[in-house]
Amino acid sequence: MTSTTGTTGTPPSSGLAPEIAARLKRSADGLLPAIAQQYDTGEVLMLGWMDDEALHRTLTTGRCTYWSRSRQEYWVKGDTSGHFQWVKSVALDCDADTVLVKVDQVGAACHTGDRTCFDADVLRRDGAGSGVPSSDQ
Amino acid sequence: MTSTTGTTGTPPSSGLAPEIAARLKRSADGLLPAIAQQYDTGEVLMLGWMDDEALHRTLTTGRCTYWSRSRQEYWVKGDTSGHFQWVKSVALDCDADTVLVKVDQVGAACHTGDRTCFDADVLRRDGAGSGVPSSDQ
Repeated sequence: MTSTTGTTGTPPSSGLAPEIAARLKRSADGLLPAIAQQYDTGEVLMLGWMDDEALHRTLTTGRCTYWSRSRQEYWVKGDTSGHFQWVKSVALDCDADTVLVKVDQVGAACHTGDRTCFDADVLRRDGAGSGVPSSDQ
Repeated sequence: MTSTTGTTGTPPSSGLAPEIAARLKRSADGLLPAIAQQYDTGEVLMLGWMDDEALHRTLTTGRCTYWSRSRQEYWVKGDTSGHFQWVKSVALDCDADTVLVKVDQVGAACHTGDRTCFDADVLRRDGAGSGVPSSDQ
């Protein structure tokens, strides 16, 4: 099994500041998960993937930019839908392997039309299905 | 380059309900990124990784359980630190490749002692460093 833990993939050529690029811990395919969160309400909107260049573009253009793993191309959120994510802040986590982007989301974040990508498929809510009373949680 | 896009890894033997396991889209190493969010304040606390069994345990025990990629073992958040994450809700995203767990976090989520893993390393805040005025965002 190939572990992606702490793998520092070969940094691709990008415009990202070298001092940031040097400490990123990328997955085996050179990506970091990027969480998009609505800056004022705190809603977690979606999770996308960024390589160095997508992070660079997100930092410098003010529009959240991802790497599409399915299409193998850069993807400015909103370019086709109009549902842009205007960047408010960008942070790395303590391991430098995850990005948190606080954004102002225009319209729906989800391609289904839902506000967030996590609205439709709730597996458990407040102890439901667990057999554990809420008070025990 | 090995793409992890939409890869449905071989479902490992686990206690996860088959109807959930059947639709998960796992990374090449059989994992899903799992975002932990404080249920009441909306803080994004951390991102961990879950395989089917970790998701099953998270759903059924009410304590957030991850797969540690570095140690290659299950990891109940708080077992060593006391900083448990009591599960409030669990949702899959629209692609069934990401988990959002709303939790009640005891103490600090980050091993550094910070409340969240995203507190210490802010790359950009409100247009700083972008050359783009905030009003243009």
